[in-house]
Amino acid sequence: MKRQRTITQMREKGKTPEKQLSHEEILSLQEKDFRLLMLKMMQDIGNKLEAKMDNLQETLTKEIQDIKLKQEEMQNTITEIKNSLEAANSRIQEAEERISEVEDRLVEITDAEQKREKRLKTNEESLRELWDNVKRTNIRIIGVPEGEEREKGTEKIFQEIIAENFPNMGKESLTQIQEAQRVPYKINPRRNTPRHILIKLTKIKDKEKILKAAREKKQVTYKGTPIRLSADFSAETLQARREWHDILNVMKGKNLQPRLLYPAR
Amino acid sequence: MKRQRTITQMREKGKTPEKQLSHEEILSLQEKDFRLLMLKMMQDIGNKLEAKMDNLQETLTKEIQDIKLKQEEMQNTITEIKNSLEAANSRIQEAEERISEVEDRLVEITDAEQKREKRLKTNEESLRELWDNVKRTNIRIIGVPEGEEREKGTEKIFQEIIAENFPNMGKESLTQIQEAQRVPYKINPRRNTPRHILIKLTKIKDKEKILKAAREKKQVTYKGTPIRLSADFSAETLQARREWHDILNVMKGKNLQPRLLYPAR
Amino acid sequence: MKRQRTITQMREKGKTPEKQLSHEEILSLQEKDFRLLMLKMMQDIGNKLEAKMDNLQETLTKEIQDIKLKQEEMQNTITEIKNSLEAANSRIQEAEERISEVEDRLVEITDAEQKREKRLKTNEESLRELWDNVKRTNIRIIGVPEGEEREKGTEKIFQEIIAENFPNMGKESLTQIQEAQRVPYKINPRRNTPRHILIKLTKIKDKEKILKAAREKKQVTYKGTPIRLSADFSAETLQARREWHDILNVMKGKNLQPRLLYPAR
Repeated sequence: MKRQRTITQMREKGKTPEKQLSHEEILSLQEKDFRLLMLKMMQDIGNKLEAKMDNLQETLTKEIQDIKLKQEEMQNTITEIKNSLEAANSRIQEAEERISEVEDRLVEITDAEQKREKRLKTNEESLRELWDNVKRTNIRIIGVPEGEEREKGTEKIFQEIIAENFPNMGKESLTQIQEAQRVPYKINPRRNTPRHILIKLTKIKDKEKILKAAREKKQVTYKGTPIRLSADFSAETLQARREWHDILNVMKGKNLQPRLLYPAR
Repeated sequence: MKRQRTITQMREKGKTPEKQLSHEEILSLQEKDFRLLMLKMMQDIGNKLEAKMDNLQETLTKEIQDIKLKQEEMQNTITEIKNSLEAANSRIQEAEERISEVEDRLVEITDAEQKREKRLKTNEESLRELWDNVKRTNIRIIGVPEGEEREKGTEKIFQEIIAENFPNMGKESLTQIQEAQRVPYKINPRRNTPRHILIKLTKIKDKEKILKAAREKKQVTYKGTPIRLSADFSAETLQARREWHDILNVMKGKNLQPRLLYPAR
Repeated sequence: MKRQRTITQMREKGKTPEKQLSHEEILSLQEKDFRLLMLKMMQDIGNKLEAKMDNLQETLTKEIQDIKLKQEEMQNTITEIKNSLEAANSRIQEAEERISEVEDRLVEITDAEQKREKRLKTNEESLRELWDNVKRTNIRIIGVPEGEEREKGTEKIFQEIIAENFPNMGKESLTQIQEAQRVPYKINPRRNTPRHILIKLTKIKDKEKILKAAREKKQVTYKGTPIRLSADFSAETLQARREWHDILNVMKGKNLQPRLLYPAR
């Protein structure tokens, strides 16, 4: 009787008494109790495994659900990115077209620039020729002290220079003076050399005759003091001549024998 | 015998008779039937749980498979996006370089512009000086009625004005007329004032003598009617003088005492 | 006794003898062995299913883990892409602003271009007028053989032409020669026509008188050989006249009757 206990007695011990029943106890159970125990154990195993399975399912389903949510979120981000990238590509496309138009405009501007550059150069040359043309009947007298003209006038100084240096020259040249004046009009206080006197003659021949005579005489004077008579050139021609002289001097320094005295025009 | 039924009898009741067997029925089963029932129940539990597990596995594996497919698809999209973004960055890079070149070109153009602007200004000043130079032996006669020159010629009008206003002036000035004409060449029908007469003298001195005499006499006339004699300036110089007068008038209006009559040149 | 075998005996056959026990054998087991078998089978089912479940869990958890890792990796890539795209958009923004500035600059340059173009045109017209002004007292003599001037000078040729063709013309015109020279200064070896002789007179009236007389005489000669006397125009005016003649010729070719001989200036 000691070993023959009822299930009821065993249940009083705890909630899961089955596992605690030893094999000996189970072997000593009455047939009826053994059968009830079997049914109970069968049910317990089923419940326990099903619960475990439900738990697993729940856990994994939750994980999968999270993954899917995250995936959806990422998919939305990707869609946004695709749209954003498409918009960026459109902007790039538009920017490229604008750049192309700008580049085309630059080519046009460069063409127009070159044409205008050429015209500007033509105008500058034309101006230089005009100035040379305007100045070609002029003689510059360099070295006559300032103030000499105050009493007798500038024209008279020129007449005196002709009389002093070229006494045999005809009177004609002297009556053909269109203009006689100091240049520039204002005295520059920072320069201590007298301003030039500019004589405009009517005939180019007269100018050439006087300058030729001056070159032959070598020393031209005004009241005994050396002065210089020179042709009058535009600022641009003087600049070109200076540059050309620099080149000639460099060539001479290198023992080259330049043939041209001035560049052909 | 009533309570001792066979499994076969029970099976005839339905497909899953076990669950419907009450504890009392199970307790009343013969030993052999109980044993068979136990084996059957054991097998059923195993099958049922395994089926459930297979079902779970299948469901979750399907879910995971879907996720992986979706993930692969997203990965492809991401790769595409990366490539597309890389291409976009290359285009941006290229566009930036083109913009830089354009900007460099603009700096060059701006430099060239400034140089050309300076040359253009120099040319304009040179032209203005040339025109002033060309016009500096000119006298403008303003107010002689149109048609007066028809019979006697324009030069004769000038000679009459000199004789009428400056009877003591030497004959020399009169023989030094290079040109005498109405300007402009065509009559503008919308202006009801007579065109000016332009006299080109040979010597600047003659022009100055005549204009000085005109200023001293104050009232110059042609056949008794007042006319004006004036120097001839380039359009640009006239424009500059007008602008300068505007400034002087504004200064006078503000009670300032401008010292300069004309801007220094 | 044959059919009543012990579990121990059965176990000696192999490790999983239960499955190999037939129903008949199980039915013939002693009560004690049956009970032990039941306990064993119960435990085995539980273990087997739990193992299977653990295996499933492990497999799926591994799969999910892989997916999550991959997802994280993709998320990082997406974040990188977003940042990269943001950077690209900033660069595009900046590029667009640079393009806008460039476009604004181009508008400014185009405006400045148009203003300079206008000034350039004004200068060109002014230059053309100046040249025409400078040349308006000139007469061109076309057709006098080269070298004729060597002995007697260019001025003398002009005087001989006047004497030969217009014997009644006053001496005055002849004394008013400012300049007489071959143009251009250098002989062009590729042209086999003699260079023109350019005569600069002092008075425009004298030029007009001579050219009018030449038109009336129709045939002007030098030493009996036909030559031509013509007015002297700037290169630009000659070009404009040539173009205008082309238009007039086209109009005449179409039987149109152009009224204007030259465009109004």
